[in-house]
Amino acid sequence: MFDETAAGVYVIAVTPFLPDGSVDMDSTDRMVDFYLDAGATGLTVLGIMGEAPKLTGAESAAFVKRIVARVAGRVPVIVGVSAPGFAQMEGLTKSVMESGAAGVMVAPPNHLRTDDQIVGYYHQAVDFIGDAPMVVQDFPLVTGVQMSVPVIARIVRDLPTCVCLKHEDWPGLEKISTLRKPGVLDRRISILCGNGGVFLPEEMARGADGAMTGFAYPEMMVSVVKHHASDPERGRDLFDAYLPLARFEQQPGLGLAIRKHVLAKRGVIAHATQRRPGAALSPAGVAEVEALMARLTRRLAELG
Amino acid sequence: MFDETAAGVYVIAVTPFLPDGSVDMDSTDRMVDFYLDAGATGLTVLGIMGEAPKLTGAESAAFVKRIVARVAGRVPVIVGVSAPGFAQMEGLTKSVMESGAAGVMVAPPNHLRTDDQIVGYYHQAVDFIGDAPMVVQDFPLVTGVQMSVPVIARIVRDLPTCVCLKHEDWPGLEKISTLRKPGVLDRRISILCGNGGVFLPEEMARGADGAMTGFAYPEMMVSVVKHHASDPERGRDLFDAYLPLARFEQQPGLGLAIRKHVLAKRGVIAHATQRRPGAALSPAGVAEVEALMARLTRRLAELG
Amino acid sequence: MFDETAAGVYVIAVTPFLPDGSVDMDSTDRMVDFYLDAGATGLTVLGIMGEAPKLTGAESAAFVKRIVARVAGRVPVIVGVSAPGFAQMEGLTKSVMESGAAGVMVAPPNHLRTDDQIVGYYHQAVDFIGDAPMVVQDFPLVTGVQMSVPVIARIVRDLPTCVCLKHEDWPGLEKISTLRKPGVLDRRISILCGNGGVFLPEEMARGADGAMTGFAYPEMMVSVVKHHASDPERGRDLFDAYLPLARFEQQPGLGLAIRKHVLAKRGVIAHATQRRPGAALSPAGVAEVEALMARLTRRLAELG
Amino acid sequence: MFDETAAGVYVIAVTPFLPDGSVDMDSTDRMVDFYLDAGATGLTVLGIMGEAPKLTGAESAAFVKRIVARVAGRVPVIVGVSAPGFAQMEGLTKSVMESGAAGVMVAPPNHLRTDDQIVGYYHQAVDFIGDAPMVVQDFPLVTGVQMSVPVIARIVRDLPTCVCLKHEDWPGLEKISTLRKPGVLDRRISILCGNGGVFLPEEMARGADGAMTGFAYPEMMVSVVKHHASDPERGRDLFDAYLPLARFEQQPGLGLAIRKHVLAKRGVIAHATQRRPGAALSPAGVAEVEALMARLTRRLAELG
Repeated sequence: MFDETAAGVYVIAVTPFLPDGSVDMDSTDRMVDFYLDAGATGLTVLGIMGEAPKLTGAESAAFVKRIVARVAGRVPVIVGVSAPGFAQMEGLTKSVMESGAAGVMVAPPNHLRTDDQIVGYYHQAVDFIGDAPMVVQDFPLVTGVQMSVPVIARIVRDLPTCVCLKHEDWPGLEKISTLRKPGVLDRRISILCGNGGVFLPEEMARGADGAMTGFAYPEMMVSVVKHHASDPERGRDLFDAYLPLARFEQQPGLGLAIRKHVLAKRGVIAHATQRRPGAALSPAGVAEVEALMARLTRRLAELG
Repeated sequence: MFDETAAGVYVIAVTPFLPDGSVDMDSTDRMVDFYLDAGATGLTVLGIMGEAPKLTGAESAAFVKRIVARVAGRVPVIVGVSAPGFAQMEGLTKSVMESGAAGVMVAPPNHLRTDDQIVGYYHQAVDFIGDAPMVVQDFPLVTGVQMSVPVIARIVRDLPTCVCLKHEDWPGLEKISTLRKPGVLDRRISILCGNGGVFLPEEMARGADGAMTGFAYPEMMVSVVKHHASDPERGRDLFDAYLPLARFEQQPGLGLAIRKHVLAKRGVIAHATQRRPGAALSPAGVAEVEALMARLTRRLAELG
Repeated sequence: MFDETAAGVYVIAVTPFLPDGSVDMDSTDRMVDFYLDAGATGLTVLGIMGEAPKLTGAESAAFVKRIVARVAGRVPVIVGVSAPGFAQMEGLTKSVMESGAAGVMVAPPNHLRTDDQIVGYYHQAVDFIGDAPMVVQDFPLVTGVQMSVPVIARIVRDLPTCVCLKHEDWPGLEKISTLRKPGVLDRRISILCGNGGVFLPEEMARGADGAMTGFAYPEMMVSVVKHHASDPERGRDLFDAYLPLARFEQQPGLGLAIRKHVLAKRGVIAHATQRRPGAALSPAGVAEVEALMARLTRRLAELG
Repeated sequence: MFDETAAGVYVIAVTPFLPDGSVDMDSTDRMVDFYLDAGATGLTVLGIMGEAPKLTGAESAAFVKRIVARVAGRVPVIVGVSAPGFAQMEGLTKSVMESGAAGVMVAPPNHLRTDDQIVGYYHQAVDFIGDAPMVVQDFPLVTGVQMSVPVIARIVRDLPTCVCLKHEDWPGLEKISTLRKPGVLDRRISILCGNGGVFLPEEMARGADGAMTGFAYPEMMVSVVKHHASDPERGRDLFDAYLPLARFEQQPGLGLAIRKHVLAKRGVIAHATQRRPGAALSPAGVAEVEALMARLTRRLAELG
């Protein structure tokens, strides 16, 4: 169900909360439907940019169960299981795979530096997560860990359960091209790109299979991926229309507040509430987001 | 000539090289004219993102002299004097101020952490650079140093020569708003924004005085600043047209190669040559840049 | 039971494991007795240098219960509750305080930089841990966060539950002197020092109240603290005897393997086993440790 | 004169200043004599922990000339040429090699992360420094760059001018053992150890050729190296006597103030002056250092 053929758009789901801070299960259901209606080919939950660490173990487990139940087998659900220790990673993986998740995602911890340290870490991680299909998250801006092509090649060679790279190195286009060169990897894996989608047209052209990120308009990403082969200029026209907002959502830290505000404004989730600590949008920030949404609507109308 | 009223667009100039690696003085002249014709209200040279450390002291001095001579008093020239030690900073400052520079820019070194350390560093720097008007560069993504509003307020209060903040925190819009709140700073300074201009419309709305960055189409920044008061929607239409390329140029490390390629393509500099170490554009990267330039031309034609 | 008068030696306890990786409760009991017999005035468990993240939540809770039961009220037990999110920190705090812990210890997460961010973090943490007496851990080498004296002063002023600073800045002697100057803090808190005890004589002379660290010979730290007022030269003679081994144990990462090896060799814990990931001692490393132990025995005999 | 057979003690020289901040050439001469009388087999100047960046280019050149003249061919002189750009590194290398230096030392810049980036950096550096014998400085605590054994092996294999590793990884004993295993490096290079000498007995036993560090009592390092083969227990007795002071001098940042204070107290240099920015010793710090010096004298007398 989730393997090296993964393609399309895996939306990184937010975690909706009620104003009192409890997980909002009704919004969770609505969000699942919204993402799938928009054309998502998969969902990814409890990502490191999300609010996973703000949930207790019990809450995480219940949230994943609810997501999986609502998805009802229509698309694969991937769960972020990065944790400060392997005991927690093992426990969470076991729990979510039993709940019906299709795979797990692991980001490297901040203290890793040398190539050997990074490869060694994934070896150990796989000892704990077992045979669950694994996404390796390559996100230096947030993790502080730079994974070179030789490192990724060693992980792919050594660990058969690594089926997908969540690519969000920046700059990262040459890395995609290199990974796609014959002989660089000893088998093909899926490459799904992050960074809020702001490089998606170029990433597709370089050989990516799609996106795995959480931009609040997943239809943009679905369009770019869909038009990539048939009508890339049309895909780019749409991409350009969304870019002013995508760029705005791409602000580190603040991005989640923007994303939740847009999703709430679009009626997907009931509240933009974040658990603490969370960067809040000021009134000026809200006005900026809503002005960008209005400009987007106008531009889409022009494009037809 | 350069003080706290600085406004408009201070273009961060590249350092043009001949294919043999020597400084290209003819291109330097042409570049100065190009920036000024585009509406630049100032120039900034030898920035940390540029190739300043690749020049010898003698080359730096000769380059600044040539720039100042060509500018011929039309706009102020600011020179980046960040250096690993104060002896070098003092020597460079003295040399460029005698050559006719209007001010200097200082970025905090990577090892500073606490508020007191940062403020203390600028106190010491000013002991060495003397009464030259100073731009404080706030660029955490590259320097690794986060300057809070209280830190900036202390620098402004303690050091009268600090007349301008080169703002490129990310996210940074709330910081501009806070700095502009009455009472936060004990005197108004100029705020000129970086980050390749990709947040310029919002930055102007938050109270910035303009841009200090090196996007290869300075006319975009000039337009956004010019239309900010009179016709901001027109300014945004133009901004949006340039954004796909501005976003592409904003890739860390690779950005300079893109910028020099565009400037060479536009006939401003003779060669896109960088001194080593420098990230080069692959053929695929060149194609991406040129496709974006072509789309920009079409979009500008549509906008009229 | 644990407040701003805390003094003496709070030993940072290791977490003993059986060869199969399960928590070794018998060794845990023996270790508690050993530390208390050596003169410990408190115990600290689940520290960031220990193996806390390698335990599941259930294991952590059971381990703390066992420790508290064995201590049986003889000394206070402090528990490290640093966690990637406040939900986990809150849950663990509640659990261990109900089990009879006397306080909790919180280290700042790696991403904090500015003074305001650090102070803000502790404000939020206290909202979650409630009225549990709190130790602030100042350990820049491991956390990457530098806490200046003004930051500590603000935390002490704002948060009455902060009763103790675990001081392991390096260099850090001037910081102790400054914190002890009249007027710098608006109330006196306990300062207990870390760094494996390798600066303990100087730290006591600067105004520290004792040690909170895990050197495998707690009797050294007890002696230095005890002799500090009465016969400091005798204290230093003993300190110097232990220093070659203390210096060796102070190697980052490897230190825990050395510490566990010594404790096993001394009969305190049954096995030096660590859970993965853990740096292991090579045969050469074992020989080095044991040679240092033998030299220590000889030197102590000389000193009488 | 300086090649892969380098052994013994290469003392890292301080840069002596007069109270007015100018370089103190008389103290420089006296310091050279002192180090050579103590048994130094080489000198290293302008290291990254020293005050190299506080000198102008002209001052650096004059200082190296003076050192080389005073040494008068008795031992090799190595010069640190790490610089933010290759143009400066090239210029300084050329200048000091012409002055009679025997080799240069290069530390990796802070932004390097992956194995390929580090190896690539040294390839480029050698393109600029030419055929000067090169010391690679492996000092993660200060540079932030972790050089694994495979990285060092690639540098040694690719770059014949790399004749020596200045080893100050921490922990680093296993690294020495691994580098000395047959087949790990394709040729033997010199390994000289740093970290203020605080691990020197163990480093010698693991296969190091000596020390390259600046502890203010070079005679300790000379003794440990000398006794290593013939009477290691005697070497350790002496080492242990100096360790309380060596540990104290090993404090990051503050260490240079301690080192200069001791050298001034010993009559080697006229003043402990540092150029700014420099951490100064407080009166309490001075008292601590002098108490440690007095205890050292007593202990050496006991040892005979």
